[in-house]
Amino acid sequence: MAHAVSPLALPLPALPPIGGVRLGAAAAGIRYVGRDDLMMVELARGTTVAGVFTNNKCPGAPIDWCRGALKGGKARALVVNAGNSNVFTGRAGAEAVKASAEAAARLVGCRAREVFIASTGVIGQRLPVEKLEAALPALHASLSDEAWERAARAIMTTDTFPKAATRTAEIGGAEVRITGIAKGSGMIAPDMATMLAFVFTDAKLPAPLLQRLLSRGVARSFNCITVDSDTSTSDTLLLFATGAAAHPRVPAEGGPILRGFRAALEAVLHELALLVVRDGEGAQKLIKVSVRGAVSARSARRVALSIANSPLVKTAIAGEDANWGRIVMAVGKAGEPADRDRLSVAIGGVWMARNGAVVEGYDERPVVAHLKGHEVEITVDLGLGRGEATVWTCDLTHAYIDINGSYRS
Amino acid sequence: MAHAVSPLALPLPALPPIGGVRLGAAAAGIRYVGRDDLMMVELARGTTVAGVFTNNKCPGAPIDWCRGALKGGKARALVVNAGNSNVFTGRAGAEAVKASAEAAARLVGCRAREVFIASTGVIGQRLPVEKLEAALPALHASLSDEAWERAARAIMTTDTFPKAATRTAEIGGAEVRITGIAKGSGMIAPDMATMLAFVFTDAKLPAPLLQRLLSRGVARSFNCITVDSDTSTSDTLLLFATGAAAHPRVPAEGGPILRGFRAALEAVLHELALLVVRDGEGAQKLIKVSVRGAVSARSARRVALSIANSPLVKTAIAGEDANWGRIVMAVGKAGEPADRDRLSVAIGGVWMARNGAVVEGYDERPVVAHLKGHEVEITVDLGLGRGEATVWTCDLTHAYIDINGSYRS
Repeated sequence: MAHAVSPLALPLPALPPIGGVRLGAAAAGIRYVGRDDLMMVELARGTTVAGVFTNNKCPGAPIDWCRGALKGGKARALVVNAGNSNVFTGRAGAEAVKASAEAAARLVGCRAREVFIASTGVIGQRLPVEKLEAALPALHASLSDEAWERAARAIMTTDTFPKAATRTAEIGGAEVRITGIAKGSGMIAPDMATMLAFVFTDAKLPAPLLQRLLSRGVARSFNCITVDSDTSTSDTLLLFATGAAAHPRVPAEGGPILRGFRAALEAVLHELALLVVRDGEGAQKLIKVSVRGAVSARSARRVALSIANSPLVKTAIAGEDANWGRIVMAVGKAGEPADRDRLSVAIGGVWMARNGAVVEGYDERPVVAHLKGHEVEITVDLGLGRGEATVWTCDLTHAYIDINGSYRS
Repeated sequence: MAHAVSPLALPLPALPPIGGVRLGAAAAGIRYVGRDDLMMVELARGTTVAGVFTNNKCPGAPIDWCRGALKGGKARALVVNAGNSNVFTGRAGAEAVKASAEAAARLVGCRAREVFIASTGVIGQRLPVEKLEAALPALHASLSDEAWERAARAIMTTDTFPKAATRTAEIGGAEVRITGIAKGSGMIAPDMATMLAFVFTDAKLPAPLLQRLLSRGVARSFNCITVDSDTSTSDTLLLFATGAAAHPRVPAEGGPILRGFRAALEAVLHELALLVVRDGEGAQKLIKVSVRGAVSARSARRVALSIANSPLVKTAIAGEDANWGRIVMAVGKAGEPADRDRLSVAIGGVWMARNGAVVEGYDERPVVAHLKGHEVEITVDLGLGRGEATVWTCDLTHAYIDINGSYRS
């Protein structure tokens, strides 16, 4: 189960407290032994919430619960366990979620519908909710405003490093902070990635506005990453706004006063999404795929994802092989408008193929050097229109096979 | 470049001559050293032809040529090289195909448009057509009606064993034979698989009828296999009918007289397609994915392909892990109508999950035994309608990474 830390890992940033957020973690023994596997957050009264969930048609019971709870727009607590995803667990699964929410609600003193639940881990096994309920009271008693790293670690499954991002912004001259933690490593593909991400801010924002900000931010972050094209049944991204910061009132429609906040939120989401790719199962290289010249942005994104999900492209990058022919193949298989004879391909900024044929005598040395690094850039120009998109993925290596051929054992 | 023969390999069947078909192979030194890499077939006057090609938007120059030649409906020769796919080679690529066809036409004494060309191998490198032209005269002089195995070996790239299938059928009481050879191992996904397949019969059938028979047969064979979801730029399937057999005239619409022939043709296509999966790069297990209870056959096929292309499902099978939760995930990510709470999943005929939850107390032992074998069956019942589909794939192993991380080196 334990794998070497990804060579693409980044250190956890310093994570100062956020007004209205208290958190902690505990070892509930749900599946893992000798590590935290349960995380709890208590949120100040008046906290608003927004969420985005997997498009998978077989979502876990916690997703059903959160979708319902989100309608109220209010949150007082978040409970997350790792090791068991509570997916495909029938009525027992739904009852386990309800019991978890009720147990947390009793401790916090709120309604169960103000408790959000997420689970990650193996699919199809009964969640031992009694272990979770047993661990909650002591965990609740231990909550503090500083346990960010411990919380980020408690939600990991095949992740090799904890993931967090933080930014500050100004709203009407007052400083607010946005901090997110995430987990995710495999079963990562839009929409969304196989991951859990929880973002907290002390800004005071109505839930509908928060939801618009989040949905917009996801389109450019979590929905632009893929590790293995497999879409999780548990993807959950929640954004909580405690309202503890003292800033001028934000109008319902948002507007210019939120410009800085919006940029900071998008930066946090983008950084979290890229951290997930950096911890892609077996990843040795972070791959940025940029497509331009498509007939539309939507078409560009599909072509970019076709490249990013191609096992042959990903193994070529793993082998540090500038096999641009496979990129041509992946463009052509996307099913989107493409004209072979207008297509150009670059790796590391060097155009190796232009307008349907190899660039005779191009210098392969900088490409080879680029491929030896940890970050690889692929650029494709379809030469048809003005549509652009960028997605991120990682290479496909032996370690992916190692990790996924023995996940449950 | 040399990899161990697939454990799923099947021996080449005995391949008797077919009236009107003479074939052979030679070492032209196009890319490989010390092996045949050029294959030629001469076909009797009056031979009709049908073809199906890749849907990839960046097809190779030979595909362009064959699509044009197919309009005539007549064939006198086939020339195939391995080691260089002549894809993404611009005007030089088109000229190389034309030169190859003209060289073969001179030898056979036919029009260039009656010569079909296919190439397989690396993308984006100029085809050294002069080597091909230099080797053709001696190759043509050596053609015989018995060189099937040599022909099947000459077109291999990363294949670990030669592939052929043969059947006989009766048309109006007279026996006809159908024999096909194929190559394909990676870059295999519908439509079609990354592969070349050439099927020959001595039946006498008009080209439009031949095309209908072929298109129908492909839907149930080559378009139901996938190795890695990557669609080649060179996929070519050609069916040649020499008319050498002495059977009653077949009407233009085909009809009942062709019942036996149609079944035999479909059997040959199906067997060839499965041989390609059996030689899937790194394959240790052949996986049959059957989906039923979908809202339509089309929907069932998409769900089946979502399972068959899921890296997490394929690595689980490689690890002999009955991780049916990943199958649930792959059903859910297909984007097709599915209801988690009606979904059932079986491996090796044992239903492990039914109607949205695990089957409590199911016997895992026969499943474990089944997974240790070379052929694995996954069955999914969506419980929604009557749509059914079956596709075949292979597992995803370390050898796939080995082969594709160093293909060009």
